[in-house]
Amino acid sequence: MKPRLALTMGDPAGVGPELCVRVCADPAVLEMCEPVVVGVGEVLAQAAHLLRLPMPANMEEIGGVSSNFAKGAVSAECGLAAYRALMRGIDLALLGEVQGIVTAPLNKAAMNLAGIFENGHTEILAKATGTDRYALMLYSERLACVFATCHQSLASVPGSLTKERVFEVAALMNEALLAIRGKKPRLGLLALNPHAGEGGLFGREESEILEPAVALARDSGIDLSMPIPPDTAFTASAIGNYDGYVCLYHDQGGIPFKMLSFEDGVNITLGLPIIRTSVDHGTAFDIAWQGSASPSSLLAAIELATRLAQKNVASASCR
Amino acid sequence: MKPRLALTMGDPAGVGPELCVRVCADPAVLEMCEPVVVGVGEVLAQAAHLLRLPMPANMEEIGGVSSNFAKGAVSAECGLAAYRALMRGIDLALLGEVQGIVTAPLNKAAMNLAGIFENGHTEILAKATGTDRYALMLYSERLACVFATCHQSLASVPGSLTKERVFEVAALMNEALLAIRGKKPRLGLLALNPHAGEGGLFGREESEILEPAVALARDSGIDLSMPIPPDTAFTASAIGNYDGYVCLYHDQGGIPFKMLSFEDGVNITLGLPIIRTSVDHGTAFDIAWQGSASPSSLLAAIELATRLAQKNVASASCR
Repeated sequence: MKPRLALTMGDPAGVGPELCVRVCADPAVLEMCEPVVVGVGEVLAQAAHLLRLPMPANMEEIGGVSSNFAKGAVSAECGLAAYRALMRGIDLALLGEVQGIVTAPLNKAAMNLAGIFENGHTEILAKATGTDRYALMLYSERLACVFATCHQSLASVPGSLTKERVFEVAALMNEALLAIRGKKPRLGLLALNPHAGEGGLFGREESEILEPAVALARDSGIDLSMPIPPDTAFTASAIGNYDGYVCLYHDQGGIPFKMLSFEDGVNITLGLPIIRTSVDHGTAFDIAWQGSASPSSLLAAIELATRLAQKNVASASCR
Repeated sequence: MKPRLALTMGDPAGVGPELCVRVCADPAVLEMCEPVVVGVGEVLAQAAHLLRLPMPANMEEIGGVSSNFAKGAVSAECGLAAYRALMRGIDLALLGEVQGIVTAPLNKAAMNLAGIFENGHTEILAKATGTDRYALMLYSERLACVFATCHQSLASVPGSLTKERVFEVAALMNEALLAIRGKKPRLGLLALNPHAGEGGLFGREESEILEPAVALARDSGIDLSMPIPPDTAFTASAIGNYDGYVCLYHDQGGIPFKMLSFEDGVNITLGLPIIRTSVDHGTAFDIAWQGSASPSSLLAAIELATRLAQKNVASASCR
């Protein structure tokens, strides 16, 4: 059965509306799922007009955006609309009216102008669903990275790492990759320090936090490596060694992931009671509303959400 | 005129000796420079025998290694020999007997066993030449990265960054790339925090340290960018934007550099009174003394040292 998926429009001023219109006119998308765009009809109509494509067949109207909203720029009006679309999408998923949500990008500065102070989609989703055990995973066929810490300063990273947290994200990734790929994954754990700490010379987090986390994971039957030196982990010859990488901070996994999977990367929130995937790019104000934005990341996100929904893994693997 | 280059053998137990023998038998190398291997004749003879290649024509004997030394393993004997070869190479360069030195890899644990506690080549070179303004640069035709901090724990990185240090490494890179490539480079400055700090939400180092460093650099005529988000800096579409990248910690530049230039990457120490390049790989004990190690990084290091020596840039650009 084709799953019904909420497609949240994201910030109206960014590339979200045009991408939503484009994928809803794509026969391959309609073949695999039933998308419901959560957004503002007036905004989608303008995007459809720009692209000379039909309006999406199914939409959930949230209103609240004037017809002359500022395109390609930060505004409180658009920040609020993006937030409201996301919240409505979450509600639809929690109520079971859709089997998953796929989110187009929002803009943090615009949300802040609207008085909403959140670090991003992941944090909003966790709060709205009452989840405290969650993690962001970047996924493509080539590379999967899960993050023990994410949207926070680099200086705050070492103090945020605990063996329990590293074990938790390894467990979430283990479940998710098992569900997505159908076999138990081998997971590589990135070290925090250069050369994996060089035997304690460049930091002790490897022996004090990471190695104990590996012991916890192995006790639970998870195939997690000892901490590996980050700089050589993603070379062409090394990258086949593991099915997924447990990364400790945003750019440690973000740099290699975007190098290898910029076009078709998907962002998944693991640990939620609902299925949620997302594009891995931003609002791209510089190219928004020109009709040139590539839907490849959104297509990959829809494809993955469909696969997860068919396996009904929200409560099983992504709990 | 062909420059004379000291080739320090590195740890006898690693891939250094076989690589030295191999490159000294390469007509292309002998065409461009006159290599002098600084090492142990007995060790080089064993490597030459393994490869069925002639002994290097020029060598500087340092002695001190028994003929049955342990191959592919950490030992005090080999750690000491690697250190002594490096120190002799530095002396030859300071005395003007060679125009530059090219170093094969050493092993920190082996040096420690021998009672020598140094973080690596770079730190030894700086100390031995009395240099306090220096930086490590990884260089290939595709990508150049200089490092504001390097062999230290990630937790200690934010506290080590100052606007003066970031300006200093940008200035060193600016001089070096100008010498190597013959035109003024555009330099990209990596942010410390995710999304370049997201306007202060994820750390304030961008506004408090990095932006002031950019102002200093621009006052000196250096074309240094404002802090750029690390995760999207090295994608295929972004990487042409700059001729070189100022990186703030070891793995920020190490991850993309090794992904793109694992085979032909060269390590250069900027700021020394002598020219010094190096392979960018380690001793590779797992494949040492099997005759299979690739000399491509050592060849690239010799080629670059030759180019720098011909331009006599040690005191000009690498001061």
